[in-house]
Amino acid sequence: MKRLLSLGETPLGEIEELLALARRLESHPEPTALAGRVLGLLFFDPSLRTLASMQSGMARLGGSSFVISPGRGSWPLETRAGVVMDGDAAEHVREALPVLAGYADALAIRAFASLSDLDADCADEPMRTFASLVDRPLVNLESAVDHPCQALGDWKAMDDLGVPRAGKLVLTWANHPKPLPLAVPAAVAEMAALRGMEVVVLRPEPYALPAPLAARAARAAERGGGSFRESAERAEALAGADVVYAKSWASARHYGDREAERSARAALADWCVDEPWFERAPGARFFHCLPVRRNVVVADRVLDGPRSAVVHQAHQRLWVQMAVLHHLLVGRRRG
Amino acid sequence: MKRLLSLGETPLGEIEELLALARRLESHPEPTALAGRVLGLLFFDPSLRTLASMQSGMARLGGSSFVISPGRGSWPLETRAGVVMDGDAAEHVREALPVLAGYADALAIRAFASLSDLDADCADEPMRTFASLVDRPLVNLESAVDHPCQALGDWKAMDDLGVPRAGKLVLTWANHPKPLPLAVPAAVAEMAALRGMEVVVLRPEPYALPAPLAARAARAAERGGGSFRESAERAEALAGADVVYAKSWASARHYGDREAERSARAALADWCVDEPWFERAPGARFFHCLPVRRNVVVADRVLDGPRSAVVHQAHQRLWVQMAVLHHLLVGRRRG
Amino acid sequence: MKRLLSLGETPLGEIEELLALARRLESHPEPTALAGRVLGLLFFDPSLRTLASMQSGMARLGGSSFVISPGRGSWPLETRAGVVMDGDAAEHVREALPVLAGYADALAIRAFASLSDLDADCADEPMRTFASLVDRPLVNLESAVDHPCQALGDWKAMDDLGVPRAGKLVLTWANHPKPLPLAVPAAVAEMAALRGMEVVVLRPEPYALPAPLAARAARAAERGGGSFRESAERAEALAGADVVYAKSWASARHYGDREAERSARAALADWCVDEPWFERAPGARFFHCLPVRRNVVVADRVLDGPRSAVVHQAHQRLWVQMAVLHHLLVGRRRG
Repeated sequence: MKRLLSLGETPLGEIEELLALARRLESHPEPTALAGRVLGLLFFDPSLRTLASMQSGMARLGGSSFVISPGRGSWPLETRAGVVMDGDAAEHVREALPVLAGYADALAIRAFASLSDLDADCADEPMRTFASLVDRPLVNLESAVDHPCQALGDWKAMDDLGVPRAGKLVLTWANHPKPLPLAVPAAVAEMAALRGMEVVVLRPEPYALPAPLAARAARAAERGGGSFRESAERAEALAGADVVYAKSWASARHYGDREAERSARAALADWCVDEPWFERAPGARFFHCLPVRRNVVVADRVLDGPRSAVVHQAHQRLWVQMAVLHHLLVGRRRG
Repeated sequence: MKRLLSLGETPLGEIEELLALARRLESHPEPTALAGRVLGLLFFDPSLRTLASMQSGMARLGGSSFVISPGRGSWPLETRAGVVMDGDAAEHVREALPVLAGYADALAIRAFASLSDLDADCADEPMRTFASLVDRPLVNLESAVDHPCQALGDWKAMDDLGVPRAGKLVLTWANHPKPLPLAVPAAVAEMAALRGMEVVVLRPEPYALPAPLAARAARAAERGGGSFRESAERAEALAGADVVYAKSWASARHYGDREAERSARAALADWCVDEPWFERAPGARFFHCLPVRRNVVVADRVLDGPRSAVVHQAHQRLWVQMAVLHHLLVGRRRG
Repeated sequence: MKRLLSLGETPLGEIEELLALARRLESHPEPTALAGRVLGLLFFDPSLRTLASMQSGMARLGGSSFVISPGRGSWPLETRAGVVMDGDAAEHVREALPVLAGYADALAIRAFASLSDLDADCADEPMRTFASLVDRPLVNLESAVDHPCQALGDWKAMDDLGVPRAGKLVLTWANHPKPLPLAVPAAVAEMAALRGMEVVVLRPEPYALPAPLAARAARAAERGGGSFRESAERAEALAGADVVYAKSWASARHYGDREAERSARAALADWCVDEPWFERAPGARFFHCLPVRRNVVVADRVLDGPRSAVVHQAHQRLWVQMAVLHHLLVGRRRG
């Protein structure tokens, strides 16, 4: 593996190796595995878990990291080709990325969706451009429509909690004050299908996954032995779930149109996950990638109750990312 | 010791141990004591000394750190219980803190006073909430009404400079363009009283310490063998001082009312510490926690003169914080 | 060497030593040379390359670093003497710098030109003040009129690329939406003259280097055996160049007057380096310090073509800065 851009592009055997390595690093520290190695972290967008866990993970393996944030301490970067750069951006990624790659043994990049151009977002354009500019190991820390570290951490969290590989995962849309990217829903649906699960995306009609992302999940189901479908029927969808994974995302129908999106949501305030949702899935665990808005996306009593796995989920980010870094920088010699 | 939230809660014997450890680390480096350990630094508010010295201290002990700043690179965090999170804050501390704690071997948190609700501030509410959410070693890097690392560093600075344990410390209010938190005055008065000193808080009447903070200082005096009183009489208060510690703070009388506070200060521009203040305390050292506004809080000639101890004070932050981290993470086995 | 403020103040023999050390560190890593050492990075202004490469370089030598950014996570700092600090700045560099120096084994500081007071900028006032306040090794990471790390990296890049020491370097002004500091042109002209090159500054008349900076370059030519002149004749200046180094800078004639500067530039849009510029210098390499605005300063086809050396240039920053840090902190014992 030279880069982790998408779990959907990663051979299943390699995913299993990463999960095994994550478990090993969790129980058997390797405090010098990456001694002298430097990770470059490029954050075009804000972060809490990813920023903390990547730095901590690198340190726990004996390495170091630096953080560059365009627009916050560094100037804004241009990503479009061929433009006359007389605006805000003082530098183009065509220079910035090869330069930063030269200072680091690996780069890891976060760049959220545009939320204005659905086709470009579904093609994951900026991350694909970044990948073409960097000839070092590269990790996607959330792009327009992917978030492989989140997906891998969630896979491990389900393993840890005894969620069967062939279990049922319901990925439910939830209300939110703002339209949010499709990266987590796309990555989680794909991951769960790859893991062999029965995947149901529960959402109001305007929130159906855009076709390219639904196709990704369907392909993953074929590869992994799971299944994938969407539903707008809450009771039916939730029945028998092992995991209810909540997440808000923007409507493909209103993509880039904040007013239409706002109107579409006006009647959807009851898409806040609460205990009654679990009537026909009493043992289901509650998952969310975080950050989560309490009492908008999910009720306090769910998040604070025994079915909530969100903190455990977040903690797995550390171990799986350490496995990814170890795999990329040490390789299989020691892995 | 599992956490350092307040010097007032720390047994005197443990304070002496920390000071001894700080002196030892200053003269005998332990560059691998915290090898492989990671400190999470969470700054809700700006910092210069604390940010630099915590990272430097961790590095000098062989460990690493990461910095998370809600609102600057990470999103704003909610601290109130039970709210519907449809505002600016994308995440609640109830998730964020346990998550970050899981990435780190210890957390250290700065969260300034609200400056609007005196009772909540005096109860040090957010820091108490944080402490309840984190089951790792925790260090208070300035909360609403406490700043134990500052207080401990100042104690060491006085020891270094030969200020007698039973000497006289005058904590004087000073003018400032803005109302400032009560954390440093509360922590310093308590510390000096614990140290056994004669503590006099010199301030105009509207700047009397609020009752709960005065009570803390009085309790500390009982424990430590010092004394505590307030005074509005400059000449009397300053006479015979060993240390004149300047600091501005908000008036409890006008708490949260910026206009009233501004009016109250209009006539107080002469509360700028200058050489004539030392007429009856010619050998007194000048202390301030920094940052300090020159020629508003204190005249250039005092700050640039031989009685100024402010840079030495600041430098002690490094050693005492290294002692705290060492104590929390290594414990007494090697300490 | 106790500090690197300007290449122009550095003995030629020491420059050669730094270059040799940079080459050695590039091929023979010394991952523990600076173990336990801490570098304090103080950025008054934004950065990408410098921020990343200083942290990476310190880590590759086994050391650590912390970053302080006044106005972004730390409060603004005052630099003027004698002022009544009732404005935005909460702290003076007279306190902040000695304090930070005490937490670090070396400091490195970036503070851009005022772009309002030409005389003060040409005297490099704030950096000279900083140097007087810090009794630790100090590195200038770009001051009002200097950028020695850039200059040293460019020297190494020219060595790497086989540019003859007695070759011809044309430093050409280029268009830009904003007036920019004179630090890079001053440092590069001085460096190339020190290196023994024929240095021609090509610029429209209003962009002649201010007299003190031209004098610096002329003195460097005397010391290094090169030559220095300015020209407004593009064809003549470019003929036979080995290196065309593009950079925009503010006009000394309109210094601080943004409107006059804008008018002066209105007719200068053709100062965008493009392939026809190389007609009489077909083998010349294209240099720029980055960040560069594509299709304003230089055409895409030059930057993406084989003569562009900008990424190689940027990568040399890492090795020369590691050499500087090694030299400052280890000294000649091992160097």
